[in-house]
Amino acid sequence: MDKELLNKGVLRLEWARSHMGVLAEVRRELVKSGALKGKRVGMALHVEAKTGILALTLKEAGAKVRLTSCNPLSTDDCVALALNERHRLETYAKKWQSNKEYYESLHKVLDIKPQITIDDGGDLIFLLHTERKELLDGIIGANEETTTGIIRLKAMEKDGALKFPVIAVNNAKMKFLFDNRYGTGQSTFDGVMNSTNLLIAGKTFVVAGYGWCGRGIAMRAKGMGARVVVTEVDPVRAIEAHLDGFDVMPMSEAAKRADFIVTVTGCRDIITEKEFKVMKYGCVMANSGHFDNEISKVDMKRMSKSVRRVREFVDEYALKDGRKLYLLAEGRLVNLAAGQGHPVEIMDMSFAIQALCAQHLALNGRRLKPHVYDVPTEIDDKVAALALKTNGIELDSQSKVQKAYLSTWREGT
Amino acid sequence: MDKELLNKGVLRLEWARSHMGVLAEVRRELVKSGALKGKRVGMALHVEAKTGILALTLKEAGAKVRLTSCNPLSTDDCVALALNERHRLETYAKKWQSNKEYYESLHKVLDIKPQITIDDGGDLIFLLHTERKELLDGIIGANEETTTGIIRLKAMEKDGALKFPVIAVNNAKMKFLFDNRYGTGQSTFDGVMNSTNLLIAGKTFVVAGYGWCGRGIAMRAKGMGARVVVTEVDPVRAIEAHLDGFDVMPMSEAAKRADFIVTVTGCRDIITEKEFKVMKYGCVMANSGHFDNEISKVDMKRMSKSVRRVREFVDEYALKDGRKLYLLAEGRLVNLAAGQGHPVEIMDMSFAIQALCAQHLALNGRRLKPHVYDVPTEIDDKVAALALKTNGIELDSQSKVQKAYLSTWREGT
Amino acid sequence: MDKELLNKGVLRLEWARSHMGVLAEVRRELVKSGALKGKRVGMALHVEAKTGILALTLKEAGAKVRLTSCNPLSTDDCVALALNERHRLETYAKKWQSNKEYYESLHKVLDIKPQITIDDGGDLIFLLHTERKELLDGIIGANEETTTGIIRLKAMEKDGALKFPVIAVNNAKMKFLFDNRYGTGQSTFDGVMNSTNLLIAGKTFVVAGYGWCGRGIAMRAKGMGARVVVTEVDPVRAIEAHLDGFDVMPMSEAAKRADFIVTVTGCRDIITEKEFKVMKYGCVMANSGHFDNEISKVDMKRMSKSVRRVREFVDEYALKDGRKLYLLAEGRLVNLAAGQGHPVEIMDMSFAIQALCAQHLALNGRRLKPHVYDVPTEIDDKVAALALKTNGIELDSQSKVQKAYLSTWREGT
Amino acid sequence: MDKELLNKGVLRLEWARSHMGVLAEVRRELVKSGALKGKRVGMALHVEAKTGILALTLKEAGAKVRLTSCNPLSTDDCVALALNERHRLETYAKKWQSNKEYYESLHKVLDIKPQITIDDGGDLIFLLHTERKELLDGIIGANEETTTGIIRLKAMEKDGALKFPVIAVNNAKMKFLFDNRYGTGQSTFDGVMNSTNLLIAGKTFVVAGYGWCGRGIAMRAKGMGARVVVTEVDPVRAIEAHLDGFDVMPMSEAAKRADFIVTVTGCRDIITEKEFKVMKYGCVMANSGHFDNEISKVDMKRMSKSVRRVREFVDEYALKDGRKLYLLAEGRLVNLAAGQGHPVEIMDMSFAIQALCAQHLALNGRRLKPHVYDVPTEIDDKVAALALKTNGIELDSQSKVQKAYLSTWREGT
Repeated sequence: MDKELLNKGVLRLEWARSHMGVLAEVRRELVKSGALKGKRVGMALHVEAKTGILALTLKEAGAKVRLTSCNPLSTDDCVALALNERHRLETYAKKWQSNKEYYESLHKVLDIKPQITIDDGGDLIFLLHTERKELLDGIIGANEETTTGIIRLKAMEKDGALKFPVIAVNNAKMKFLFDNRYGTGQSTFDGVMNSTNLLIAGKTFVVAGYGWCGRGIAMRAKGMGARVVVTEVDPVRAIEAHLDGFDVMPMSEAAKRADFIVTVTGCRDIITEKEFKVMKYGCVMANSGHFDNEISKVDMKRMSKSVRRVREFVDEYALKDGRKLYLLAEGRLVNLAAGQGHPVEIMDMSFAIQALCAQHLALNGRRLKPHVYDVPTEIDDKVAALALKTNGIELDSQSKVQKAYLSTWREGT
Repeated sequence: MDKELLNKGVLRLEWARSHMGVLAEVRRELVKSGALKGKRVGMALHVEAKTGILALTLKEAGAKVRLTSCNPLSTDDCVALALNERHRLETYAKKWQSNKEYYESLHKVLDIKPQITIDDGGDLIFLLHTERKELLDGIIGANEETTTGIIRLKAMEKDGALKFPVIAVNNAKMKFLFDNRYGTGQSTFDGVMNSTNLLIAGKTFVVAGYGWCGRGIAMRAKGMGARVVVTEVDPVRAIEAHLDGFDVMPMSEAAKRADFIVTVTGCRDIITEKEFKVMKYGCVMANSGHFDNEISKVDMKRMSKSVRRVREFVDEYALKDGRKLYLLAEGRLVNLAAGQGHPVEIMDMSFAIQALCAQHLALNGRRLKPHVYDVPTEIDDKVAALALKTNGIELDSQSKVQKAYLSTWREGT
Repeated sequence: MDKELLNKGVLRLEWARSHMGVLAEVRRELVKSGALKGKRVGMALHVEAKTGILALTLKEAGAKVRLTSCNPLSTDDCVALALNERHRLETYAKKWQSNKEYYESLHKVLDIKPQITIDDGGDLIFLLHTERKELLDGIIGANEETTTGIIRLKAMEKDGALKFPVIAVNNAKMKFLFDNRYGTGQSTFDGVMNSTNLLIAGKTFVVAGYGWCGRGIAMRAKGMGARVVVTEVDPVRAIEAHLDGFDVMPMSEAAKRADFIVTVTGCRDIITEKEFKVMKYGCVMANSGHFDNEISKVDMKRMSKSVRRVREFVDEYALKDGRKLYLLAEGRLVNLAAGQGHPVEIMDMSFAIQALCAQHLALNGRRLKPHVYDVPTEIDDKVAALALKTNGIELDSQSKVQKAYLSTWREGT
Repeated sequence: MDKELLNKGVLRLEWARSHMGVLAEVRRELVKSGALKGKRVGMALHVEAKTGILALTLKEAGAKVRLTSCNPLSTDDCVALALNERHRLETYAKKWQSNKEYYESLHKVLDIKPQITIDDGGDLIFLLHTERKELLDGIIGANEETTTGIIRLKAMEKDGALKFPVIAVNNAKMKFLFDNRYGTGQSTFDGVMNSTNLLIAGKTFVVAGYGWCGRGIAMRAKGMGARVVVTEVDPVRAIEAHLDGFDVMPMSEAAKRADFIVTVTGCRDIITEKEFKVMKYGCVMANSGHFDNEISKVDMKRMSKSVRRVREFVDEYALKDGRKLYLLAEGRLVNLAAGQGHPVEIMDMSFAIQALCAQHLALNGRRLKPHVYDVPTEIDDKVAALALKTNGIELDSQSKVQKAYLSTWREGT
């Protein structure tokens, strides 16, 4: 065991914990309620410090927790070590896993016969519905963290395939408005700057997708001085991007101008041969979407005479035509693979939702039919209230007269 | 008749028309469909150039239109004159109307026994349900333009008072995402800068309310170099404002620091005696919300030893304690009273929605029960498509493979 | 005499005065020093409210003042009337003057045989050196307000033509850093928005010149949501604009994309036939530079089959090829012609410099050789200190230890 | 020898080289001119990849180069190894050096009896004037990279102590406008985000000093969503910061509100006991100024009951009163110690200036008297031209008519 690595992990967990005040309040409630006592919880989330604190929170609330990562590149090895060795929380995750190892870890988590699962991308739920159907009976319900996972689960529900209730944690206002936007915005630049040491200012920075994540990235790219180009398939979002001052165009056109491209669409094949063909020498590509299929590595490899790793998270594709293109973090979530993931305070809010939804499932899951549920409003409101308190923000409140005014229709001009 | 004023109005209408390409396309469709032919339409919208083009659009589509303003201060007199004299469109509106005159004008509009009404704030609908009940039978349905009107109508529906179908035009994505945000954002500064000639940069600029309008104003205040403070009653919006880099605090605290305050909450009594008491000498207040009750003129008058008009749209309240406070445009919509209202291109989109909703009512209104309806998705989509075309924005489109991918749940990590 | 106009002017002056706290302090000093007592001062500055307060300041300090405008379109007629009628300050200025009238007014100002002149663009100084040489002997010195005037005066000095000392007021830090940047930035949008009512967000907004004025305009265009393009002839400024996130390209290229173009270069022929040829239908052009020769009206007229005024400050050029182009305020300073000029608080600082420089000339001018002088550092510092006080800004101050540290070279790593 | 580390360093150098196109052009010129052939050059610059390419450039131009770092924490060990082992460039530098080791390394560099020195902070020049006076005769001249070094050298010159010519590389427009502003702006956030994983958005971020570096940091803090507070001692800069929309106040006040403080003043004792006393629990401090004396570690240690390292670059000071404060990178340049230093493209321009100034000294230094010289304009212009070319930026150029116009004074209104 690497003591230095262990110590680093222990401290990272401590640092995260000391900046997660919302989750701390939730932890007190969970411990008090006892709802999770003895529950088996299987988790597949990016294994880094903030996730560690969520897992420890559930453990401290009495749950039996097993944890693995939801992406082969998003594990912080020192944290995984510290969780296992110091906190005795069973963690099966390693950075730079092969796909085979990745799936083996998922199975390890399922081996505890979870009653509740927490997914980010839906891989545990998928396995439960395919290779591990024998476990379905034991499942009370599941949480799903991310947009991509929810698209997948709604497809599942539409197919009539979904066998247990799932809470769409992503759809809580206190999650997607903050985690997807300000979280992805900042952490993507953490990853890009850390992996390349290149200048953002003055660069043409293409953002594929203007959902909550995409607008976070575009906003920060602008804030760092880039000239931002947005690509979209949705007309309304495209007009929003346009009026936010960004250039909007098809990717085939954007690719010609790009110095950087970050994809965050949740869809596959956003950049393919067609786009690689027209890129400038030196274009740097990264992905902040859930899966590594937004930028086609297959196409790029086919077009290349060689590929080599030129920095820790930078692969250089030397195309047959002489151009060189750069892909960060193998096209996997650049903010987690090459950066440290979302800022602690953002995950504090997201994971407070997660923890309360886990408790909600423990208390009510058995009564719920298979369906993708939104987060109960009370949970969203509670986390909002705690976040206000933690940030020391004071609001106005509506007086009786004001409330009455808003419910009358007789007062006009 | 003032020929110069007439000519000014004629040109303003022409200028607006030449920059409303989306509405032009809609006009061609309306003329072709004939759905509005012979329909009597009563309109109460801010009578300025863009509204004029909407009214003329309906007229050109065959409707019999009568128009008045929805606010005593928002009429552009040259446009009203040109509509009456050049375009023979009956318009009953005048800037600086008294409340009595204002209501007389609304009645004039109702005197045509409208089948369809178009409101901004709900005053026509209110009259129809109270003083003009005899007209209710003739009504097919109504459009409502603004957030405040919709709050009022939903209160009406909840009370069981609503007697005909209303379309909540405001709730179309192509309306509130653009009109409320970028429209109010720009036009509020048009009004504030025009009426005061004061510097925005470096000032403490308080925005009351962080809804779509409020965030538009806050965004532009920041863009003009102000230090922005936001007040809110909603926790989630408050945290958004906080993470957008704005100071968030109660109005009683914000008022102490404010150089400018703009209210845009849709609620009454946002600034009252309590706040006037703590303001700095010279604080400038304005309102961009629908009604003029957000800033309590009653309280301010009571606290003042004198009130005088010091610039066209600036009233100076000399408080008994020696401080002077300034109120723009009598606390009525500053962007319309002291500015020229939203930019033309923004109203082009909003009024395309209006025109298509009027057609929708003409075609389907008789089949609809009394209820506040959202704008049909097809109308929103059509306007989005036209706006893309008008702005020359090209999008990506999803391939079959991509669509299939998004509807499968079997592809994971 | 138009009483309403007079009253408007009286109030505008009062409003300006009440927001010019720095100049008020300077006024107290000037009155006390008596340096300007009996001095004849000829002024050619944009005749609007803030300038009125400068002129009145000099008058109140004992000077005999005569005032005219420095641009045929920049006079606020109500202010000119109030200065003449209420304040008995001789003012020869009128909006929409012909060039002939403009020069007649300049001569009227010179007819008082000024000892000190205050120019904005150098027209008084030019006349003194050409048609009115008989007055040269009486001149103590002159102030010049703007970049363009100083370029002209330095050319004069280089030619050996300059006959008296001139203070380059523009070059005071408390002037160009604020007036040129934040002043021009805000007031240009006041003018553009007021004259067009068009949307800025999402538009391609071209700024010609990235000097202090240009970067003010670019900064605000970005703040209003535009996509900004900068044109430059200076390499370093071009790279700055590039790294500030703007597109940089030749005007011939920029003109193809422009929705708006504002010139602010101080040079002639920035937009000529070559650029008009490639513009999009509907392109709106304006100038915020001193003279109206940045956009070639000659070329545009030659290419047009008709020209007409479509809004108060908008001329429509109908080109022979069918396109229509729009020029604001006849290509004269759009911020003064179509807007209300710089915000009051900005001119407060600039005119405090002016007033103190006038006093400096009265006291020391006779000892100064003909030359273009920078503003004395003490004057700059005094205005900075007053501006801090007026804005309520507190600074840190260096301790003795810190001062000593900064003057030693012996302390290293 | 650590092969993995070596390989990492080799690749980092290659990556930097491939993004330094301006320096590449300069290298071709230097090789061709032969001016540096055989010259002994002693360098004390932050030893990381970009500096490596500058050192190699001089070596490839024929110089004999010895290199060490100018800060005990700014060395990238893999680069130092690669320079020594792969490129045979003598490099004496190590991360986390003690002060003693740091000075030993400086002496090692001086042991080659340099003819030209290149400093960042002036430590080599200081040693040459104190402990190593025997080498003064051999010195042709020196370059100095940074503001702090130049303040120190000007103090030296004022004392009459300076014995050879020094070029103030920092004062080249192509250096300070870009390196200090956009470079420090980005790299400071690289360091802060990398070391803390904390959220920037919504935080109160205090920047001490609004020079070129400070405004770079403030601009990026705003771009990342922070609420920015600026502290200053200079009135004009303070008003600029105020009008740029930042809060300006004394540090004693700012410290109360700060979530983050970054010092970049070039002066000592910016944060001392007085400020530590009022800080909030958890305040994070960092320094981007040259020396580690801006934040008083002495005071903070005295006030603490314990200090421990909680993350790689984060020291936790547990104050006796129970609060915990955090200091990044021991108060040394956070962007180099905890980040990767300025973006490559920025250093490309700065180091092109360095290389050309070294050549200038080699050619002309013997004729120059001891004095702190500005960079020759031709060098600044050459680098600007190369930077334009490298970035593919096209400019307008002035026509003869325009040039003539700008040199005449006879054309007026």
